[in-house]
Amino acid sequence: MPPETNQRIVLAKRPVGWPGPEHFRLEEVPMPVPKAGEVLLKIRYLSLDPYMRGRMNAAKSYAKPVEVDAVMVGGTVAEVIASRHPDYHTGDVVLSYSGWQRFAVCDGTGLRKLDPAAAPVTTALGVLGMPGFTAYAGLLTIGKPKPGETVVVAAASGAVGSVVGQIARIKGARAVGIAGGADKCAFVRDVLGFDAVVDHRSSDFAAQLAAACPEGIDVYFENVGGPIWNAVFPLLNDFARVPVCGLIAQYNDEAPAGPDRLAGMMRQVLTKSLSIRGYIVYEFAAQQDDFYREAAGWIAAGRLRYREDIVDGLETAPKAFIGLLRGANFGKLIVRL
Amino acid sequence: MPPETNQRIVLAKRPVGWPGPEHFRLEEVPMPVPKAGEVLLKIRYLSLDPYMRGRMNAAKSYAKPVEVDAVMVGGTVAEVIASRHPDYHTGDVVLSYSGWQRFAVCDGTGLRKLDPAAAPVTTALGVLGMPGFTAYAGLLTIGKPKPGETVVVAAASGAVGSVVGQIARIKGARAVGIAGGADKCAFVRDVLGFDAVVDHRSSDFAAQLAAACPEGIDVYFENVGGPIWNAVFPLLNDFARVPVCGLIAQYNDEAPAGPDRLAGMMRQVLTKSLSIRGYIVYEFAAQQDDFYREAAGWIAAGRLRYREDIVDGLETAPKAFIGLLRGANFGKLIVRL
Repeated sequence: MPPETNQRIVLAKRPVGWPGPEHFRLEEVPMPVPKAGEVLLKIRYLSLDPYMRGRMNAAKSYAKPVEVDAVMVGGTVAEVIASRHPDYHTGDVVLSYSGWQRFAVCDGTGLRKLDPAAAPVTTALGVLGMPGFTAYAGLLTIGKPKPGETVVVAAASGAVGSVVGQIARIKGARAVGIAGGADKCAFVRDVLGFDAVVDHRSSDFAAQLAAACPEGIDVYFENVGGPIWNAVFPLLNDFARVPVCGLIAQYNDEAPAGPDRLAGMMRQVLTKSLSIRGYIVYEFAAQQDDFYREAAGWIAAGRLRYREDIVDGLETAPKAFIGLLRGANFGKLIVRL
Repeated sequence: MPPETNQRIVLAKRPVGWPGPEHFRLEEVPMPVPKAGEVLLKIRYLSLDPYMRGRMNAAKSYAKPVEVDAVMVGGTVAEVIASRHPDYHTGDVVLSYSGWQRFAVCDGTGLRKLDPAAAPVTTALGVLGMPGFTAYAGLLTIGKPKPGETVVVAAASGAVGSVVGQIARIKGARAVGIAGGADKCAFVRDVLGFDAVVDHRSSDFAAQLAAACPEGIDVYFENVGGPIWNAVFPLLNDFARVPVCGLIAQYNDEAPAGPDRLAGMMRQVLTKSLSIRGYIVYEFAAQQDDFYREAAGWIAAGRLRYREDIVDGLETAPKAFIGLLRGANFGKLIVRL
């Protein structure tokens, strides 16, 4: 029997700059009741991802903002505990988009059944889910790495970056990771098998990155933004490609001070025939089945590795999310409920 | 008989910021003498183009800098006045890349014979030359305008911009031009037939541009850079394409002051899935024959119009070129020798 109340975390107020605990509120609400055609879900795992910071703003982006006092959005792995939907039965484990709460109802839209025997169900939130597919689609469709080329990715130990570098290597390119701190760098080099890794906290980061890319950079997979640009840009080769997938380092910035780097950036775009291309993974939905098939094969063959950073308890989600924005997590961040 | 001396204009010293007359020097040198396999050219027309400002810098770009004391580079229309080359004869009119001088020798590399009966030979420097092809290749290969989409181009009365907007219309798109001053705006609207034109000198330029693009901007053909970005960027639609062909408004800028617009630009790239792609026309050399054929047909059909701004005398080239960088020309700038 489910409890009589549900717990959820809502957006308490919109942050300006960095979010803090005061921007979230844990509240108890009546237990949702499934209507005809709906299922009742008990959420087991909640994915925490950088894009959620954008949803906390009022500004129009590629998706609607979360309203103040509404539950925070997010991907989840859940168990069906009651069903009035013909396709789902009690005990089914599903990928859903139920947000930061313990229970939810769903009419089946966006649900995908998971096979716990095929892969740990948490991978549906990471390497075999949206982050993995984001890496796959952006790298292969926009980055188009060729054998022998150099691919650079920041947040290289993270959910997206780790997949980018490993697929780059599978495609015959050289993978250079950027990560923060010795532990993450060791993981990127020794476990994920990148060709080189550079610690962006090093005082001579730019020089180290240049040394790690003796033939320049052909693909810079952009998922952080911020000051790392300054080190990457001079190293980009003619006809380099820059898929822009995320900008976590600047999600909390207010109007930045000068000097204005835009003019210099455009000059590089012109003189080096660069391509800079933003994308949201939904654009590439037609490739999703290819991704599942290929990525599952690579995992089975030991060519695609992943690391999860699992924290316990719905109430820890705000703190864990704030830590994610500062790079405190180590691997795909997931809350176990 | 050619004279005993040649006149040429060399780079006297490298400018920092805006070039002035002091950066050029007119000098007399001995008449060049063609060796076996070479032709002697008498230059009739010299093309002045914004890219030449880049060649005055020492910095590596997509082409080698002009050396100090070396003749300024540039496309020319010339007459063969002596030939020791089997393919060229006295009286042939050719497109050559002979630079800012009265006479030159050439071993045939890069020469193309022109047919003065087919089109005015000056068009080989403009609408049927490098500027026209730059417009054609960048708009069609990178911009990819679809019928009904909105294409915006600045310097719309110029050699490249005028062709961009007219080809956009030929392809069924809406062409919105940006130009400086009432005369140029009238020309863009009434002679070139753009759907709308906005004067960037207007105090409410950004509001006027927004009004001229009620359905946003799908293709922004970037050939000026500088402050026009600020008005264009908020209007770009999801999946907009930005071919970057030139940045004349910032060729003479030194390190610009803040605020730093790069972060905001990257945010737009991400949330709107924008494509920004620099190019040099040589990349698309394989399309050149298609261009000549199509553009000649459009000119014959009255669908592709052009305007030339012809000034007289080699000695006027520096002043005319400096004016070009400030937008003082009106149409394709050519020096008649």
